Amino acid sequence: MNGKFVLGAEITRDRLDWGEMGWISRPADTQAKSICEIEVTLEPGFGHNFHKHPNQEEVIYVLAGEIEQWLETEKRTLKPGDSVFISPDVVHASFNVGTQTARLLVVLSPCVGDGGYELVDVSAEAPWNGLRQA
Amino acid sequence: MNGKFVLGAEITRDRLDWGEMGWISRPADTQAKSICEIEVTLEPGFGHNFHKHPNQEEVIYVLAGEIEQWLETEKRTLKPGDSVFISPDVVHASFNVGTQTARLLVVLSPCVGDGGYELVDVSAEAPWNGLRQA
Repeated sequence: MNGKFVLGAEITRDRLDWGEMGWISRPADTQAKSICEIEVTLEPGFGHNFHKHPNQEEVIYVLAGEIEQWLETEKRTLKPGDSVFISPDVVHASFNVGTQTARLLVVLSPCVGDGGYELVDVSAEAPWNGLRQA
Repeated sequence: MNGKFVLGAEITRDRLDWGEMGWISRPADTQAKSICEIEVTLEPGFGHNFHKHPNQEEVIYVLAGEIEQWLETEKRTLKPGDSVFISPDVVHASFNVGTQTARLLVVLSPCVGDGGYELVDVSAEAPWNGLRQA
């Protein structure tokens, strides 16, 4: 494949309990090897709890709304136009603590498997399980 | 480096004749190896003429405005939420033919050199130099 136009109206969107994942690029769709890109919507009150991607870099860019973004034990509020770069195997989390739907453009690279990414959930482990109550 | 928060207000922006490049991630800033990410503004009447990146995949995502996007000899109008995946060494171009500033989120991967990307301009070569007049 030389490339592919991916129109917003035609994106495959996986509806989940906490929002939606719209696939812009992953090996199964674009034959990408390097760029796994996802338009994520995160509903108010929901989040992606502490996790890491062992072999992938990630950039999260906020398109709309507002998120509480964690990078290891550091926390920042990110608004539209803000982003975070996360090195491989570094623990992070994103929570929508606002009142409107948050929209994020997420890139993971390089791609892993057909789905494009892999994830290790550490939300039940210390210190991650106590950070937000502290 | 384990990662880096990159706030929109603090991004390094290179002002060029045709718009602006705002660096979200490149080796010099985030120590990225895989994700080179740029917020590009493209003023009406301007464009990024036909070129290719020999060893990098690219995804262009439209944040605002409207562009005439070429993928080899195929042309589409892309609006906010639309995108294009471009395989390595495949010729492409983007032109702002609308009346408002276009804003694009561009990812190139993997990173090349400190600047993050490399480019071969083919705009003076056939068939690319005659496509828009055809």
